[in-house]
Amino acid sequence: MFDKYKIILASRSPRRRELLSGLDIDFSVEIDKDEKEAYSANMPHDEVPEFLARHKSESFYRQLSINEALITADTLVFCPMCNGTGSIADCEILGKPSDRREAVDMLCRLSGITHYVTTGVAIRTINDIRSFSVTSEVTFKSLTKDEISYYIDNYMPFDKAGAYGIQEWIGYIGITSIKGSYYNIMGLPVQRLYGELCDMLR
Amino acid sequence: MFDKYKIILASRSPRRRELLSGLDIDFSVEIDKDEKEAYSANMPHDEVPEFLARHKSESFYRQLSINEALITADTLVFCPMCNGTGSIADCEILGKPSDRREAVDMLCRLSGITHYVTTGVAIRTINDIRSFSVTSEVTFKSLTKDEISYYIDNYMPFDKAGAYGIQEWIGYIGITSIKGSYYNIMGLPVQRLYGELCDMLR
Repeated sequence: MFDKYKIILASRSPRRRELLSGLDIDFSVEIDKDEKEAYSANMPHDEVPEFLARHKSESFYRQLSINEALITADTLVFCPMCNGTGSIADCEILGKPSDRREAVDMLCRLSGITHYVTTGVAIRTINDIRSFSVTSEVTFKSLTKDEISYYIDNYMPFDKAGAYGIQEWIGYIGITSIKGSYYNIMGLPVQRLYGELCDMLR
Repeated sequence: MFDKYKIILASRSPRRRELLSGLDIDFSVEIDKDEKEAYSANMPHDEVPEFLARHKSESFYRQLSINEALITADTLVFCPMCNGTGSIADCEILGKPSDRREAVDMLCRLSGITHYVTTGVAIRTINDIRSFSVTSEVTFKSLTKDEISYYIDNYMPFDKAGAYGIQEWIGYIGITSIKGSYYNIMGLPVQRLYGELCDMLR
């Protein structure tokens, strides 16, 4: 489909590999060991995922050759604050929990409310870059303490923004509805990505 | 979790087995060879999936023992008509396509619009039955003829209502957004089912 290009996915996430595979395209995975995720505290929250995806792309450890296309992505969870307006700008960013206590805290906060998940994506060739981000809404039922404990102890969601994977048990029993793209919540907005790849590489 | 009961799933669908497994519960599968899917043409469309799920349950080929709980389900796709109001009552039911021509026709009709997917579920024990249905919305981008042909020839969606699986290539490249439960669109509303099982069997 995109046979003029060698597509490279720079991501540690096995979920992103699986999702990109679902587009039936050939690609290879190259992990950038020096990848950094820093952003300015002043940046509007909803711009952070796309910024991080571009940053990962532009700071990739090696130059691209003429027929290569690099895909990078970053997913963040945005949790409305008790006294906020509910818009993303007013949300707190939840990254990956550093320990069990932080994972419990994140899931307690997401319990019973609607939050946002945004994935930023960058596609770069030797002389072009484009980036975009996609936001989806996720609503959890009120989770019990037992449900939160069972999930954390059995699924160890320490590599996941917001301390959950929608494709895991907690997503099955706890998510009452979503609005937008399921795959975006998993970590890659494949429908939009496919359209952008068609535009850019064909 | 529901260890007072032996849970039985009566479904041919490998997707439903996978979805029920995601709830981390033990169950066995028993397929009823004589299963029928008939319903009256006068029945309001949105009542059909739940009716079929109950019918599958009540006509199960054998009696249940005292500690058994039987789960049955039926998923249908509802496609708005050109001149309709867009409500489910005004939609046409799309079942499984009988051949390639019918699959092409179904996907052409779903292309570029929002449709509904409803799964009806029944849970029955020896002296109790409860049933419910869950509806989700799915929006496809405009699909090209090439995309429809590629999908049908490579994925053979003849066992799927509406001629598509959201978890397959066409769902990845073609579905711009959903509203409701992703797993319901795949064939089983696991979040609601989990809640009903907790209520009924614990």
